[in-house]
Amino acid sequence: MSKVRVAGFGVSLDGFGAGIEQSLEDPLGKRGPEIFQWFFHTKTFCSMHGKEGGTTGDVDDMFAQRSMENFGAFILGRNMFGPVRGPWPDDSWKGWWGDDPPYHAPTFVLTHYEREPLVMEGGTTFHFVMGGIEEALVLAKKAAGSKDVRIGGGVDTVRQYLRAGLIDSLHIASVPVLLGQGELLFDGLDLHALGFSITERQTSEYATHLVLEK
Amino acid sequence: MSKVRVAGFGVSLDGFGAGIEQSLEDPLGKRGPEIFQWFFHTKTFCSMHGKEGGTTGDVDDMFAQRSMENFGAFILGRNMFGPVRGPWPDDSWKGWWGDDPPYHAPTFVLTHYEREPLVMEGGTTFHFVMGGIEEALVLAKKAAGSKDVRIGGGVDTVRQYLRAGLIDSLHIASVPVLLGQGELLFDGLDLHALGFSITERQTSEYATHLVLEK
Repeated sequence: MSKVRVAGFGVSLDGFGAGIEQSLEDPLGKRGPEIFQWFFHTKTFCSMHGKEGGTTGDVDDMFAQRSMENFGAFILGRNMFGPVRGPWPDDSWKGWWGDDPPYHAPTFVLTHYEREPLVMEGGTTFHFVMGGIEEALVLAKKAAGSKDVRIGGGVDTVRQYLRAGLIDSLHIASVPVLLGQGELLFDGLDLHALGFSITERQTSEYATHLVLEK
Repeated sequence: MSKVRVAGFGVSLDGFGAGIEQSLEDPLGKRGPEIFQWFFHTKTFCSMHGKEGGTTGDVDDMFAQRSMENFGAFILGRNMFGPVRGPWPDDSWKGWWGDDPPYHAPTFVLTHYEREPLVMEGGTTFHFVMGGIEEALVLAKKAAGSKDVRIGGGVDTVRQYLRAGLIDSLHIASVPVLLGQGELLFDGLDLHALGFSITERQTSEYATHLVLEK
């Protein structure tokens, strides 16, 4: 059955899923890349960015692969799509990822401002949804068919879907880093009451990977 | 040089260092024992409670041993010492641990209410300190001499000492459990700004052990 999943989400020991002050220079916020060290060295990441090499057969690459597999649609928060705030001044911003984004599927971007769909190379089309998280999920599920829907982030978008009880599975990479400041992933959320338990746990040099499921 | 250390402190994936509703029946709060599963099976824990057996030579027992070694004094919050609140009605409450507590050293209990020192078996004497965390630390350091002082808990006491910049080293056992509710260890604390970094990390079946040092 089709699931709504969060995957490949790095969280610091002190609970932050992103750094502060996201900008064009720091898409993941200040020190945000430190929570993705487990990902950058994998073959999956390298392939996504058109590079040779990368580790494979290891715990990190296994989870990296799983975080990109079997998704028929993606949902992204506005800030995950880009640094532009307020109304779209024009169509020049096309995401952080260049002409061929790593999604290769319909990708729904939450926004308050209308914008025409944006057809990219490699099968990614960005659809801009103004009706909120439920509407985006209805559209994404329809687009995904029997495949899963991935809530791609950022932190606030994941938190909104968690709070609404709409996420079935959550893969977290708990990393040995102290960010000190940033966006807390679980703050004020009672994951136990939401029905989650930890169903899988594997450790690499870079992270402890945990899967939380309902 | 003598250090001020926190050690053997279990923290759930969602950041809780203790459960809710601590009481005589639940000294660690509801579901609190789940964050100490890494500890209960060790030889160190069994020996502390006069029992035979337990694992040894494993990662958990190594950290369990280190969490009890080289301490010349301990500091405990009032709730860590017992469930009694307000003025001491009498001297009948002598801690959770029976006649021979596991400290075997001078142990300073933070309280707002005067009480005579309590000499227990095995070298533990409970001293009741009304002058706050700094005064307790001065007394504990003096008692410890060249050995370390352990801030034994609970969560609020550790947080007070962290916030005051008085802790040198912190061993955390990050456990794959979702408590959902309880006492958050790091909430509102910027450990990076406080000067901590992660200097050691080892994983067992039960926990990822991390050492944070200045």
